[in-house]
Amino acid sequence: MAETKKFLLTDKEMPTAWYNIVADMKNKPLPMLNPQTKKPVTKEELCRIFAEELVDQELSQERYIEIPEQVQDIYKMWRCTPLVRATGLEKALDTPAKIFFKNESVSPAGSHKPNSAVPQAYYNAKQGIARIATETGAGQWGTALSFASSLFNLDLRVYMVKVSYNQKPYRRLMMNAWGADVFASPSDTTEIGRAVLAKDPENHGSLGTAISEAVEMVMKYNENTRYCLGSVLNHVILHQTIIGEESIKQMEMAGCEPDTVVACVGGGSNFGGMAFPFLRKNLTEGKNINIIAVEPESCPKLTRGVFQYDLGDLSGMTPLIPMYTLGHEFMPADIHAGGLRYHGAGSIISQLVRDKLVNPVAVPQLETFSAGLLFAKTEGIIPAPESTHAIAVGIREALKAKESGEQKTILINLTGHGYVDMYAYEQFLAGKLKNHQIPDEYIAQSISILEKII
Amino acid sequence: MAETKKFLLTDKEMPTAWYNIVADMKNKPLPMLNPQTKKPVTKEELCRIFAEELVDQELSQERYIEIPEQVQDIYKMWRCTPLVRATGLEKALDTPAKIFFKNESVSPAGSHKPNSAVPQAYYNAKQGIARIATETGAGQWGTALSFASSLFNLDLRVYMVKVSYNQKPYRRLMMNAWGADVFASPSDTTEIGRAVLAKDPENHGSLGTAISEAVEMVMKYNENTRYCLGSVLNHVILHQTIIGEESIKQMEMAGCEPDTVVACVGGGSNFGGMAFPFLRKNLTEGKNINIIAVEPESCPKLTRGVFQYDLGDLSGMTPLIPMYTLGHEFMPADIHAGGLRYHGAGSIISQLVRDKLVNPVAVPQLETFSAGLLFAKTEGIIPAPESTHAIAVGIREALKAKESGEQKTILINLTGHGYVDMYAYEQFLAGKLKNHQIPDEYIAQSISILEKII
Repeated sequence: MAETKKFLLTDKEMPTAWYNIVADMKNKPLPMLNPQTKKPVTKEELCRIFAEELVDQELSQERYIEIPEQVQDIYKMWRCTPLVRATGLEKALDTPAKIFFKNESVSPAGSHKPNSAVPQAYYNAKQGIARIATETGAGQWGTALSFASSLFNLDLRVYMVKVSYNQKPYRRLMMNAWGADVFASPSDTTEIGRAVLAKDPENHGSLGTAISEAVEMVMKYNENTRYCLGSVLNHVILHQTIIGEESIKQMEMAGCEPDTVVACVGGGSNFGGMAFPFLRKNLTEGKNINIIAVEPESCPKLTRGVFQYDLGDLSGMTPLIPMYTLGHEFMPADIHAGGLRYHGAGSIISQLVRDKLVNPVAVPQLETFSAGLLFAKTEGIIPAPESTHAIAVGIREALKAKESGEQKTILINLTGHGYVDMYAYEQFLAGKLKNHQIPDEYIAQSISILEKII
Repeated sequence: MAETKKFLLTDKEMPTAWYNIVADMKNKPLPMLNPQTKKPVTKEELCRIFAEELVDQELSQERYIEIPEQVQDIYKMWRCTPLVRATGLEKALDTPAKIFFKNESVSPAGSHKPNSAVPQAYYNAKQGIARIATETGAGQWGTALSFASSLFNLDLRVYMVKVSYNQKPYRRLMMNAWGADVFASPSDTTEIGRAVLAKDPENHGSLGTAISEAVEMVMKYNENTRYCLGSVLNHVILHQTIIGEESIKQMEMAGCEPDTVVACVGGGSNFGGMAFPFLRKNLTEGKNINIIAVEPESCPKLTRGVFQYDLGDLSGMTPLIPMYTLGHEFMPADIHAGGLRYHGAGSIISQLVRDKLVNPVAVPQLETFSAGLLFAKTEGIIPAPESTHAIAVGIREALKAKESGEQKTILINLTGHGYVDMYAYEQFLAGKLKNHQIPDEYIAQSISILEKII
């Protein structure tokens, strides 16, 4: 009889609490600062932007936070997601390593993003908020929040980076199908958008600008409007820990423990979601799991950035965040893993990298697409360009194990599918993509802006 | 504690045999005929087109046919698929009915099609066939066979109906990613294609033309080339019965039996796959499950066609098939459920409709998209336009149950997701779609062609 390939949890086996790694960190992450006063932001200040219970989670040091029952019920639309033994990939690589992947692509939006979109919509609705605003780069977060908003009858406004708005019509249409209003950013609906357009009418937009627009819109409206963010912040990553909590149970079903856990990093939400529960084993049980954070070579904040307070957006609408950053004006090359083009990483992840508890690796674009196609051919899922980064490093680790003859166990987080990113694969197959190594001078110049910050 | 929403089977619980309903039919389906001799086609004739073991299955009267172990292993990449209680939809409809759906959208190609693509590729490879050819309309079958061919290193040529080739670039790109060669049909690579283009250079193509091109290509090449079809034929529907076999086990887990089973019909493969195992209960256990086959009002072969021998393609490359048909030159309106635009239904399904064992219903396009959006909002999956037909009738049945106060149990087959069909939803949301009732005169004229057939 063939080996079991998929490890599934029933609805009743779904974890009922999120894990807050701050409780177990020796060096706690530094606080966010008010960009004007340079003092730690207060709960009151944050509550003008975010729903109150999300702010409580953002500042919490509790180890476990219970998942509200209504959120659990919605999670069960697609969770628990499968843990899959990648036997096809193992065979193709002829490796003694066991490779597993967690398949987050089976969600309504096709990625891990609904794990946080649903509780964010829930807490906003619970507080009586009627309208929320957000930004989206690659479109996965915007899609997820559109889905979640439709469940709670929240009015949603999405500022979508213009280049994605034009290149990814299907993502925009998914948001429309779930009832969201989508604006190409920079837009003429905000002062910041109008200012950017006045300087450069052809501006393609950036995540920094889109965040600024969404926050400005929220600040301008009345009490009934709040902002939601899809990554970077502690409460967002908290919600994603359901991924790692499920994976721990499923790896136990498979009868093994990972030696290596690999996930890609944009702001850090899928990475933290998968890695933090395993990192708990390192921090509290004396385990030594190798936790790898993969970033694109074109946006190398963890491997080549500096640890510094920086803005989360372009124009200073957000608090200052302590993070590994390339500077908030860093313009990454127009790579196809749009979700990984953010200039900084969340404060918890940055602290963990600083403390050498997480190992960052940067990979070139062409290697990631080759890895993605091999995965599609052997495991039957065309991965999102973001996910291919984790797969590429999973493959590197499996080939290392082949070289050394070790029977390592590798766990990869598959954040989403690439069905609506096929244009990127077409470009790759046509030989039109390239690698984007960033010159030292550009990084130095981009980081120099931080001197003005604090 | 909330009710269980998802019913999952482990790898070990996956059914190991396909169900051949012919064994249990009192009135067996009529044989296919050679269009020249008008005599039943022989195994030898079919073996020039199809791999031998597939021909054996096509002609088999065995009740169960074992699924090869290698096919089972590949099925486990995504199977068993979830059976989901549609609690969100139930609540929105305020119905006492219990609604379940089988989620076939989680497969590599995003639909039920790989259930047959994998065994077809397997049997061809086993026989030493090096190259296969097929056609695709909406693109789901072509995608599925591309995936399956890549697993068995088969060279694949896909003739894709030109209107889809142009409208659905993402589908084509998925095929390319899995290594298939895709041609817009009519193409200049076959005599039939060239003849169509000579008459009408702007011809948009049809499934009938694409089938003719693929079969011509196979007949022209040497021994090492065979043809594959994604629906209509007995062996294709046979492979799909894994859907219904799993569903029976999962409905038992849920503690109930469906009163009504609903699936859409193009050639009949998802319909037969879901319905036949439940129909077995009607045929052999005296049950009385209402089996509903849903077709688009714009292509109403089961509700307004005739039962007759007809060609499967445009130009007579295929055997004559006994079926409910609108005539092989019937040109359905350019609706967005491309998978349901075929002029006829498979011979088994046609016989079952003739014997009143299956109840056909035709639904208008606008109702189906409304149903699809309600499903997306309540169950979190944007359904393929084909699947929305089954959902629309599932909703009708749930509303009937509300009216009568009956606690009916309804099971819907969700054949696939609509991630790469978002253009259709955009058109619907923009008010650009319409219903397409076919005038009696056009049907009469279209059917009149059959007089020449036999």
